[in-house]
Amino acid sequence: MNPPKTDARRHHDPEIRGFASDNYAGVHPEVLAALALANGGHQVAYGEDEYTENLQRIVRGHFGATAEAFPVFNGTGANVVALQAVTDRWGAVICAESAHIHVDEGGAPERMGGLKLLTVPTPDGKLTPELIDRQAYGWDDEHRAMPQVVSITQSTELGTLYTPEEIRAICEHAHAHGMRVHLDGSRIANAAASLDVPMRTFTNAVGVDLLSLGGTKNGAMFGEAVVVINQDAVRHMRHLRKLSMQLASKMRFVSVQLEALLAKDLWLRNARHANEMAQRLAEGVRAVHGVEILHPVRANAVFARLPHDVSERLQKRHRFYFWDEAAGDVRWMCSFDTTEEDVDGFVAALKEEMAR
Amino acid sequence: MNPPKTDARRHHDPEIRGFASDNYAGVHPEVLAALALANGGHQVAYGEDEYTENLQRIVRGHFGATAEAFPVFNGTGANVVALQAVTDRWGAVICAESAHIHVDEGGAPERMGGLKLLTVPTPDGKLTPELIDRQAYGWDDEHRAMPQVVSITQSTELGTLYTPEEIRAICEHAHAHGMRVHLDGSRIANAAASLDVPMRTFTNAVGVDLLSLGGTKNGAMFGEAVVVINQDAVRHMRHLRKLSMQLASKMRFVSVQLEALLAKDLWLRNARHANEMAQRLAEGVRAVHGVEILHPVRANAVFARLPHDVSERLQKRHRFYFWDEAAGDVRWMCSFDTTEEDVDGFVAALKEEMAR
Amino acid sequence: MNPPKTDARRHHDPEIRGFASDNYAGVHPEVLAALALANGGHQVAYGEDEYTENLQRIVRGHFGATAEAFPVFNGTGANVVALQAVTDRWGAVICAESAHIHVDEGGAPERMGGLKLLTVPTPDGKLTPELIDRQAYGWDDEHRAMPQVVSITQSTELGTLYTPEEIRAICEHAHAHGMRVHLDGSRIANAAASLDVPMRTFTNAVGVDLLSLGGTKNGAMFGEAVVVINQDAVRHMRHLRKLSMQLASKMRFVSVQLEALLAKDLWLRNARHANEMAQRLAEGVRAVHGVEILHPVRANAVFARLPHDVSERLQKRHRFYFWDEAAGDVRWMCSFDTTEEDVDGFVAALKEEMAR
Amino acid sequence: MNPPKTDARRHHDPEIRGFASDNYAGVHPEVLAALALANGGHQVAYGEDEYTENLQRIVRGHFGATAEAFPVFNGTGANVVALQAVTDRWGAVICAESAHIHVDEGGAPERMGGLKLLTVPTPDGKLTPELIDRQAYGWDDEHRAMPQVVSITQSTELGTLYTPEEIRAICEHAHAHGMRVHLDGSRIANAAASLDVPMRTFTNAVGVDLLSLGGTKNGAMFGEAVVVINQDAVRHMRHLRKLSMQLASKMRFVSVQLEALLAKDLWLRNARHANEMAQRLAEGVRAVHGVEILHPVRANAVFARLPHDVSERLQKRHRFYFWDEAAGDVRWMCSFDTTEEDVDGFVAALKEEMAR
Repeated sequence: MNPPKTDARRHHDPEIRGFASDNYAGVHPEVLAALALANGGHQVAYGEDEYTENLQRIVRGHFGATAEAFPVFNGTGANVVALQAVTDRWGAVICAESAHIHVDEGGAPERMGGLKLLTVPTPDGKLTPELIDRQAYGWDDEHRAMPQVVSITQSTELGTLYTPEEIRAICEHAHAHGMRVHLDGSRIANAAASLDVPMRTFTNAVGVDLLSLGGTKNGAMFGEAVVVINQDAVRHMRHLRKLSMQLASKMRFVSVQLEALLAKDLWLRNARHANEMAQRLAEGVRAVHGVEILHPVRANAVFARLPHDVSERLQKRHRFYFWDEAAGDVRWMCSFDTTEEDVDGFVAALKEEMAR
Repeated sequence: MNPPKTDARRHHDPEIRGFASDNYAGVHPEVLAALALANGGHQVAYGEDEYTENLQRIVRGHFGATAEAFPVFNGTGANVVALQAVTDRWGAVICAESAHIHVDEGGAPERMGGLKLLTVPTPDGKLTPELIDRQAYGWDDEHRAMPQVVSITQSTELGTLYTPEEIRAICEHAHAHGMRVHLDGSRIANAAASLDVPMRTFTNAVGVDLLSLGGTKNGAMFGEAVVVINQDAVRHMRHLRKLSMQLASKMRFVSVQLEALLAKDLWLRNARHANEMAQRLAEGVRAVHGVEILHPVRANAVFARLPHDVSERLQKRHRFYFWDEAAGDVRWMCSFDTTEEDVDGFVAALKEEMAR
Repeated sequence: MNPPKTDARRHHDPEIRGFASDNYAGVHPEVLAALALANGGHQVAYGEDEYTENLQRIVRGHFGATAEAFPVFNGTGANVVALQAVTDRWGAVICAESAHIHVDEGGAPERMGGLKLLTVPTPDGKLTPELIDRQAYGWDDEHRAMPQVVSITQSTELGTLYTPEEIRAICEHAHAHGMRVHLDGSRIANAAASLDVPMRTFTNAVGVDLLSLGGTKNGAMFGEAVVVINQDAVRHMRHLRKLSMQLASKMRFVSVQLEALLAKDLWLRNARHANEMAQRLAEGVRAVHGVEILHPVRANAVFARLPHDVSERLQKRHRFYFWDEAAGDVRWMCSFDTTEEDVDGFVAALKEEMAR
Repeated sequence: MNPPKTDARRHHDPEIRGFASDNYAGVHPEVLAALALANGGHQVAYGEDEYTENLQRIVRGHFGATAEAFPVFNGTGANVVALQAVTDRWGAVICAESAHIHVDEGGAPERMGGLKLLTVPTPDGKLTPELIDRQAYGWDDEHRAMPQVVSITQSTELGTLYTPEEIRAICEHAHAHGMRVHLDGSRIANAAASLDVPMRTFTNAVGVDLLSLGGTKNGAMFGEAVVVINQDAVRHMRHLRKLSMQLASKMRFVSVQLEALLAKDLWLRNARHANEMAQRLAEGVRAVHGVEILHPVRANAVFARLPHDVSERLQKRHRFYFWDEAAGDVRWMCSFDTTEEDVDGFVAALKEEMAR
């Protein structure tokens, strides 16, 4: 097939993949096809289009009859819109010290949302009712930012997972204290795939009030959604999204991507594949003497500890990041387009560099 | 050709177009082709990809050797990032009362950027040095927000245009007072097409410090860029974009769209066509007795005044918006995909409704 | 009497007074005496002291049984706390273009409160239902900051007054649109004195929801209070005051000043005197050929227009400010300690300078 | 002497004092006398008065020739103004997990200043270069809030002290990384008294860039100051103070209090006395079996652990606070007006309750 006409040129080698991040990957071909399908003609801007309306039906299928999706641009945007929605001007967010909102969003929650984060150190990126209690107090104390929402990440930033029961316990605990529960689902599909349950099983079914639903790392070009489950917990979400600079004018192109992922099982196929590749990678790595796997590999991330010089040599062959450079910890991510050959080649390279 | 495989379905009629907004349109086919071209393989996320690097070259071609593009998601994001970049915590922005940043961004500049807007009423959406002086004072007065930047829109929210000389005068005036000049170029292509000059002629050539470069209304799916011309005026733009929730992870897909538009002349073709359709529409409307054209039609917008009931009947046939409902003013926008038949059909419908 | 022992020295001449501002004055002796009375021993900090409790009783006497006072440090603080209390994250404030919150608070409402101000030009600093309607629309439009509160100033920044009926009309109009009404009462005492009615007559009796109650310009050393009348309109005021940096630790010393002013009639005596001095000043000025009084003199401010060079010479003898230097407009303020001799001397000086 | 005339009444028993907080105390009589001295006549508002000018001379005497004081209302205000002054929109503050700015300011730094706090657990409330390094990294990483200032508290929230050499080491370390150092000196006088050195010895002499100078806890009625030592580190402090709602109109009454404290040795006398009372209290407590002193008693705070029921009974006799209720930890504060009899009576009561 002739390449379609465009003044743009290809600047990269589409055959090269690495393990640096699941957002180094491109767009799944079925998502790209969906974008083309939604093109042509005019559609009302800012979310009153047919695609966004249809998305609501799909999202209710996944997250229950009360669910409503507010498509946004990116994960930070989804989190900051969601957290603002369930906090007053005096509110605070309880989260793990390793939470993306705390360590990887450039202070957006504080600066854009005026949010105070109350963090708790965790062994594995997971909160528990007991850990939450280390920050859940002082609601009547005006000197303290008022804890109003607990934010958990599923799968976590460390590649670990909450069971549905663990999330239920967190929700019950939070609700008993008048707090809401937000789930950062940047990699929610990987969690569902690994747990082998529908997403509802660990969200609406166990009391999550609202969530950030990830699209980008699941194979979309861009686009996430704030999914509100507990409608009593929020007001004027559309205003909040707009003033947070997260309102897409041609929203059909966000919604149709989420449709392509969520209408049937592409979301699950993509996540399952990425998880499987992470398992394959972990297995391969475990066979390499001197490399330690750091956390249970439950989703699409593999955390490992290896000699610093080996990492540096390996990085020259395959791009990836240190997680804790001082400790020699690295993170390897698999994505929907990671191949078995990619994994095997990487493991082979790791072996070579360890052997030097 | 068989439609490509995807679980998403087409929900709209790609043959229906209206005059409500230039962001009701979809994506130009050449932009869509570019997106496909950039897909596949892995590219570094967050802007260190080949497409974003290449975009810098293209942007320098348009805006001079010092220009640097920071792709963002949308127009509000571009404006708020740009204005934060040239203001201190105590800074204020002088703008027209009709400016998009003042009336159509939900308070994002104030809430997200902590920006104070000092507005000036204008007859035609255009500032002048004299109009700027109505707010340009009191730099030493701590009781007053300090004017640090003048923001103009080209083409304006009223479809009018600044000449390059008018912008030069504004820049000289602003700079003489130690202020920067920001240009909201959401429709900069329409301005250049109408003036029949390169974009540089009314930006870097006349002293504009930084601008919001529009992609979406010019035929992109999403994506704009903050273009910094005066590098001395800004610092740490990447941090600012991130904390403003405007950092796209798979940035190659923003950059390649801008490449498709800007590498050669697609930006100009699209804008020229939209402008021509607006001229055709204005001509057709002028022939309809009882309908008044309100502003000089210079870009892709036609503002008109007509009987309220006629507008309401016409809106049932073609979607468009009131601009000032009390006055009976409406806005009709043309886009890159507006056809002559669309225009002629709309004018015919207008005639019919006026005649009832 | 010997001066009390202190390492501090007197650096100023306590016999010199001017007309620059009512906060150039010091503290009324009865307020100073109250401060001494409240001293000694320990009192619970942050507002749980006996003085703050007693203040509630006094404030209910003035503003009705539902009234509750939240003492704060200064007027900007009072306004920003009050306006935050009645707005959501997406809220906007409708106010006069001349409002102190818009022109004299350094952008604090926008920067600290994330508030969007929707301003309306007025002839005399006063809003009306019709003027409010110029900004009161678009509640469902997420692109627009949502009007949630109308803020009026009594007496206004231009020395003019609302009648109780005018405020009632504003409140009814605002409430009919679901908006609250805030009254900036930095000079509320001067208004009541001039109208010769209790403060309640134009606040709680006519529907004002909350107000900023001024103490400093009425003879206090420092200290104002947010007075909430409509308790349904607000939540968690104590948290809001704290996070807005307006919580005084030794609050008894704010509260006792307000007690000294409000327990009986000191507030009224001070305001009446200042108003009378303004009347005397206006009368004297009217007799000077070539000087024009600009607004009705209703409170303690006199606005006048006179030749620029005369103003400049006069300023060398008595400190005061230009209001609009280009137009030659000046503002002369009287305070609780202005004497008849001060006024007569100033008028004499004005005559001399006009005659040169 | 007859009580001075005022409509206010005394509502409290000036003979009752406790150990709850050093801001339960009132105003030192010499400070009260200074307030009276500064009264009368007119003085320019907003800081252009003679008292504020004179304060500069005094502050330079304490903190060196480059020092400049910006009087503000309270400690939170001082801290938020100071920290904003040395951070960009993308900046973060490294501080101890126990820092007042983190745990006791209701989120004001985040909400009002848009500041991200990067906290470090400490054993004793004190940072060290090593502890700072746990957060001092990633300046080039836009995903991370950029560490731009280290904030330390002297004396700390736990009643401990930094030696001048420890602060010097922190400053050198921070400066080597391009960061500024802020000192929260809410109880700086207690620190100087305990170390028996001038305040300069552990501020300007060792590299502190700016500090919050406490007045209220040292015997003032209200009022602190941001003291800028490194003028290159800040810009437009007056604008920043105003927009942060910390600009007192009748500023002479803040400045004269600081003069009363700082002109000679009242600051030191007050602090020394409070410290001595804390020593006396600690000694008395150490003799009570079953009560454990928790931190070295270096300033005016005594932290202790005792049976919960004893604390509760004791609180009915003398007001004080739990510090960590779960652990049974309490905080007892001494102030400038604490008497030996107060201490001895409290210790006796403690003994009695322990014996029950």
